[in-house]
Amino acid sequence: MTAAGTSPPAVPAGTVLVVGAGLIGTSVALALNRRGIAVRVEDVDPVNVAVAASRIEARSVVSPADEPDLVVVATPPDHLADSISAALIAHPSAYVTDVGSVKVQPLAQLRSRGAGPDLPRYVGSHPMAGSERSGPLAAAADLFDGRTWAVTPHDSSDPRAVATVESLVSACGAVVVHLTPEEHDLAVARISHLPHLMAALTAGLLRDAPPTHLALSGQGVRDVTRIAGGNPVLWRQIVSANADALQVLLGDVRRELDDLLEALGDGDARRVEDVLLSGAAGAAAVPGKHGGPVVDLVAVTVAIPDRPGALAQLFSEVGALGVNIEDVRIDHDPARAFGLVEIDVAEGAGEGLAESLRAGGWAAHR
Amino acid sequence: MTAAGTSPPAVPAGTVLVVGAGLIGTSVALALNRRGIAVRVEDVDPVNVAVAASRIEARSVVSPADEPDLVVVATPPDHLADSISAALIAHPSAYVTDVGSVKVQPLAQLRSRGAGPDLPRYVGSHPMAGSERSGPLAAAADLFDGRTWAVTPHDSSDPRAVATVESLVSACGAVVVHLTPEEHDLAVARISHLPHLMAALTAGLLRDAPPTHLALSGQGVRDVTRIAGGNPVLWRQIVSANADALQVLLGDVRRELDDLLEALGDGDARRVEDVLLSGAAGAAAVPGKHGGPVVDLVAVTVAIPDRPGALAQLFSEVGALGVNIEDVRIDHDPARAFGLVEIDVAEGAGEGLAESLRAGGWAAHR
Repeated sequence: MTAAGTSPPAVPAGTVLVVGAGLIGTSVALALNRRGIAVRVEDVDPVNVAVAASRIEARSVVSPADEPDLVVVATPPDHLADSISAALIAHPSAYVTDVGSVKVQPLAQLRSRGAGPDLPRYVGSHPMAGSERSGPLAAAADLFDGRTWAVTPHDSSDPRAVATVESLVSACGAVVVHLTPEEHDLAVARISHLPHLMAALTAGLLRDAPPTHLALSGQGVRDVTRIAGGNPVLWRQIVSANADALQVLLGDVRRELDDLLEALGDGDARRVEDVLLSGAAGAAAVPGKHGGPVVDLVAVTVAIPDRPGALAQLFSEVGALGVNIEDVRIDHDPARAFGLVEIDVAEGAGEGLAESLRAGGWAAHR
Repeated sequence: MTAAGTSPPAVPAGTVLVVGAGLIGTSVALALNRRGIAVRVEDVDPVNVAVAASRIEARSVVSPADEPDLVVVATPPDHLADSISAALIAHPSAYVTDVGSVKVQPLAQLRSRGAGPDLPRYVGSHPMAGSERSGPLAAAADLFDGRTWAVTPHDSSDPRAVATVESLVSACGAVVVHLTPEEHDLAVARISHLPHLMAALTAGLLRDAPPTHLALSGQGVRDVTRIAGGNPVLWRQIVSANADALQVLLGDVRRELDDLLEALGDGDARRVEDVLLSGAAGAAAVPGKHGGPVVDLVAVTVAIPDRPGALAQLFSEVGALGVNIEDVRIDHDPARAFGLVEIDVAEGAGEGLAESLRAGGWAAHR
């Protein structure tokens, strides 16, 4: 056990036990392993443990007899409180964190089952990283590199426990953001769970649409519905665990929706436009790359042959022009053997880039 | 005037008048101009006409004295019926089309104001292309290349008018999709207008969110809200003109939303999961690239320095490996001077690509 310090240690002291050898848990183990930190993995499924263990270097594997200094609980949302509680009891000298998507409900469950005396050793956390894949084979040591990782101490969290979890985040390559459990759940309800439900509602209406309608799909509908393709069982557990915050937000959506329906029925253009203006303001409020303010970008569209190497050639020429690419989209092309690539660049660079590409023989326009 | 044939001519016969020198109208003029087709542009704003005319090659500009064979109406949604009606009256021997986003309302307005005898010469159409920019300076000759362009004959449309509009679409480089006006409006309500409104409702809730909440934003919320950034005045005109279809769909959303709210309140996991399963099925139904069935893709994530040339180097190496890039996303990085790039490739190619990139010194994982 380390003493509380003014700055967290660079890596967690001692050894780390990861409970739950799925994508996130195994990625934590691999990230720590990369730093030479001793780590052990547990899972109710022995196959998951075997797969995870096979990916961890032998020198870093800890024997079950070694007491961990930190336990990282990475079980599915429905099992978080049970797993955290079990870890606090089984390892009475360890700090405990979890990596679940929701923080208030597990904490309330811990309190209601009398975990109070052990609670100072628990600090919740939540890495903002994932994958459309799941399981230990999909895990990666660099999954958290550069990502935000929320650390959410509760009222009675021991400062040494907080410092240890902060050192875990740093060791995994991520960036600490401090939030209370309540703030965290409201934040992820807004910027993750509600967008997921709205994408699911939008996509649900397309399920039985005729192919002739779907054939008109462009990048817009693909963007809006993409995240609705996520694992429904996992997302059911996440949104159910954050039901209180989501009911408030969905209630707000419902009021706006009713207002919009009424405005469309009345032919009230001003109220319809108000909804759209509000949406435009909200879209502008979502941070762009690197967490900074959204830079004014312009899209340059380029037609490229749909074959290996074509994108490389394009980006090579863009790079040679000294233009920094802020974002890239590859767009729908229903009938031809080429793709339409949209390259976002800073506003001042767009026209020059399009002209230079055209001079180089590309079909490019702003 | 060409006689009706079994296949449309390669290009519109005679000369073309474009009414409305905005992004779409001027792009139509430039696309026809590229094929050497004689074209003239009108606009209520003389500046727009001057800008558009300056971009059209002199040999193709037609004098106002030359009667057009085809008029392409490209005015804002609120002015479509007036402009189409005026074109039918001013050019009694010309076919007329429009490029508006909604087809039923302008047709009904034409009928209600007694355009019946002229209506056989009118066939609506709608290119599925655009830009976040507007105006003639943003126009491009290749804006429609490879895009879908709906052609929507009504009951009394002259087959020769339909063939002429089909030849316009081909000359502009786009691909014809035939729909009735009613089918078209329902299709775009589903795959464009409703997603836009859902994005606006989702984004609207983020307008006043605190920066600490927004700082947790990932690619998901950015994708869901991106199109909400579109021009609110233009979109108000579009959704107002398609209000009937949208009220039906928004009513469906409202029922699903009420069901979801009730299920969350009751803690009814099965019903919550049903909404998510329906969304996942809908997301899978949206066509992927090239209008074909969605290929099973996997994402390979690569960390790259945020400087000109880095993406080029990455894509050059991916191209050299013979892997075709299906899509690309550049992801949020709140604190570091590198970007996270997600490359979608066919499922079978993902693991090999990640391994090869790692062997080449990149931080890459599936």
